[in-house]
Amino acid sequence: MASHSDRRRFLKRGGALASFVIGTVRSLRGQTPAREAILKDSLAYGQPSPFDNTIRRTLGQATAISDTALTTPLQDLDGIITPSGLHFLMDHVKGVPDIDSKQHRLLVHGMVDHPLIYTMDELKRLPSVSRIYFLECNANNRPIRGPNGESVQNVHGRTSCSEWTGVLLSALLNECGVQKEASWIVAEGSDANKYTMSIPLAKAMDDILVAYAQNGEPVRPQQGYPLRLVVPGWEAIRSVKWLSRIKVVDQPYMAWHESGNNADTIPNGKGLWYRFEVGPNSVITRPSGGQRLPGRGFYEITGLAWTGGGAVTKVEVSVDGGRSYKEAALQQPVHRFAHTRFRFPWAWNGEETVLQSRCTDERGEVQPTVAEAAKNLGVPPDYFYQADHFNGVQPWKVNRDGSVQNALFL
Amino acid sequence: MASHSDRRRFLKRGGALASFVIGTVRSLRGQTPAREAILKDSLAYGQPSPFDNTIRRTLGQATAISDTALTTPLQDLDGIITPSGLHFLMDHVKGVPDIDSKQHRLLVHGMVDHPLIYTMDELKRLPSVSRIYFLECNANNRPIRGPNGESVQNVHGRTSCSEWTGVLLSALLNECGVQKEASWIVAEGSDANKYTMSIPLAKAMDDILVAYAQNGEPVRPQQGYPLRLVVPGWEAIRSVKWLSRIKVVDQPYMAWHESGNNADTIPNGKGLWYRFEVGPNSVITRPSGGQRLPGRGFYEITGLAWTGGGAVTKVEVSVDGGRSYKEAALQQPVHRFAHTRFRFPWAWNGEETVLQSRCTDERGEVQPTVAEAAKNLGVPPDYFYQADHFNGVQPWKVNRDGSVQNALFL
Repeated sequence: MASHSDRRRFLKRGGALASFVIGTVRSLRGQTPAREAILKDSLAYGQPSPFDNTIRRTLGQATAISDTALTTPLQDLDGIITPSGLHFLMDHVKGVPDIDSKQHRLLVHGMVDHPLIYTMDELKRLPSVSRIYFLECNANNRPIRGPNGESVQNVHGRTSCSEWTGVLLSALLNECGVQKEASWIVAEGSDANKYTMSIPLAKAMDDILVAYAQNGEPVRPQQGYPLRLVVPGWEAIRSVKWLSRIKVVDQPYMAWHESGNNADTIPNGKGLWYRFEVGPNSVITRPSGGQRLPGRGFYEITGLAWTGGGAVTKVEVSVDGGRSYKEAALQQPVHRFAHTRFRFPWAWNGEETVLQSRCTDERGEVQPTVAEAAKNLGVPPDYFYQADHFNGVQPWKVNRDGSVQNALFL
Repeated sequence: MASHSDRRRFLKRGGALASFVIGTVRSLRGQTPAREAILKDSLAYGQPSPFDNTIRRTLGQATAISDTALTTPLQDLDGIITPSGLHFLMDHVKGVPDIDSKQHRLLVHGMVDHPLIYTMDELKRLPSVSRIYFLECNANNRPIRGPNGESVQNVHGRTSCSEWTGVLLSALLNECGVQKEASWIVAEGSDANKYTMSIPLAKAMDDILVAYAQNGEPVRPQQGYPLRLVVPGWEAIRSVKWLSRIKVVDQPYMAWHESGNNADTIPNGKGLWYRFEVGPNSVITRPSGGQRLPGRGFYEITGLAWTGGGAVTKVEVSVDGGRSYKEAALQQPVHRFAHTRFRFPWAWNGEETVLQSRCTDERGEVQPTVAEAAKNLGVPPDYFYQADHFNGVQPWKVNRDGSVQNALFL
């Protein structure tokens, strides 16, 4: 590996970049003490209304595998941007590393001609891109038995969507010179566990971001500050937080974190390995489980759709339990690999009914019902209580008293 | 004016809406005390890294008219979304009203057939739209003498950009039935000052939003919680916060707040009244005043452009003080009435130079230099130290030691 001074020499030769750091504006410089005082708290950095103190991340409830998720309150949100403070979070019990971005480094090495170490300031001098991308945990949408399975937050709140800014990973790999035998990368975080994931080189050279900003400001600590890999359309377990190392290799590493997360044992005893892409998915967020319609009349039905297949091209809504569907309006512009807000006008006649939505993506792939998903996989429907990668249609039953409940396995 | 029970009757007759309210999901319901404990603080609602504690709003410095702005740290931000906690804020010294959204009402009355009162829950049942729009104070970009005029945050930080969600004002006006003699609306906030602004009816029937969400979550208190008028492309003084009343009228009201903010006295003694639209504008945010380039070599020049004329169609960057310009890349998709991020690759040779940008909008209007702006208005260039509505080109001088300074009136 090149040391920092080696790197300087290489860069001088290559003429690509000076290795010095850009200066920081001292925003608070020159403030009088009285002014400093006024810069504290919500004046310097604003906060939500205390009257909305139920709009919070909550603990994911008693799924078969994990109970450590903090979920996004989808039922309370609008549009397609998730506020960074409400972005879902897995495995928070393992702790968030306390990283000073000035000390942070990214090493790119392995099967490359010129291994390089980047400081944050060096990364920020490179050509940048901003894209709106969703992230989704592979355990999202997994049905939950009992009352905890009622809310869209508990069942579907392991997905969020942000405007990410950073450098294309391909730009860094091109600068380092990937050797022709290489076929995978291994990305590692600087958390205590050294979280590690394997990713095919083809994806790395395509659209993966090395992101330093989320919704305008630096990536939040819980989301990987100061640097996160953002792998568009793929299960979020690949989007390595606190990114400190990219090794270019010629095979996947089957690292500890991925061996558990990749394997998907099905009833015939076989395992499904390395499922990357999120399937076409959608869910109605309002009205949804746990809410109550105060009476008959007009309601806008709204929700989110997303797919690892690129752009959502169509969302259909059924207000009669799937017997008939009509197309919903999609919030424009539709971004590839982003949450897509859909809206559908509905007049409730006061009778019992079931509301559900169905996503179609740019490849023509259609979100399945639970029965279809089970048939496709050759498993009984309640297999999905234990399974990852579930993207079945979510039905919400509206009762005559206006209460709404999860109708998936009623 | 119709009382709430009148409204119910009207709605029953009209068949448009039931007047009941949608139930709220109790996100925290059913948590054990141990779980409640873990929902506090940054787990329930995440915060930025303490290592970035200089990325804050700061007090706008000593402008001729007002010193009460909290400005957005544009030099530290990426992409086009401004984090809600860093959205600029004027007149914060007058206080933010402490409004419970459950008690809040919006009255629409005046020259309408059916005056109506809306609760927040009633508004949220109506068809909604989400749009990415900038807001900009009319005092933004005003040059500041002395060292406080050095940073892009101090000079240009009175503009921010959010994804706003709400109901089109036209939908509410149509429901109330605007009478044909009407030509203006007067919008009033529920702050102690009852901030009031007049807006032509044509704009109200076009694209004005009655917004209840900003970047996914409820509008922040400092931005108008729970309801804000968002007037796309117009100076932000029209986007009334804490909106509680819309009166349909047949003339502007010249209310206290607008008489001061509208009048723009020019040297010949005449006043310019009712300037609404923001002109085409842009500024380089990195590198910008107060920063220091650590050495020659490659830098991405980046900044923001915006216009009240609709979409930004072109941003040109000059790295030689305006002698020549080249087109910058615009972040896609470009949203009308939104910040547009531009990016431009630059190799600094270590010599003294001046960097500046120039915006062209969909109407073909081009951002002027200070000299051009002064000539257009028939005033001397330093008139703009006192003036609102300034959108002149911002030059940043790069010195040989890498320091960057405001070159507007050097």
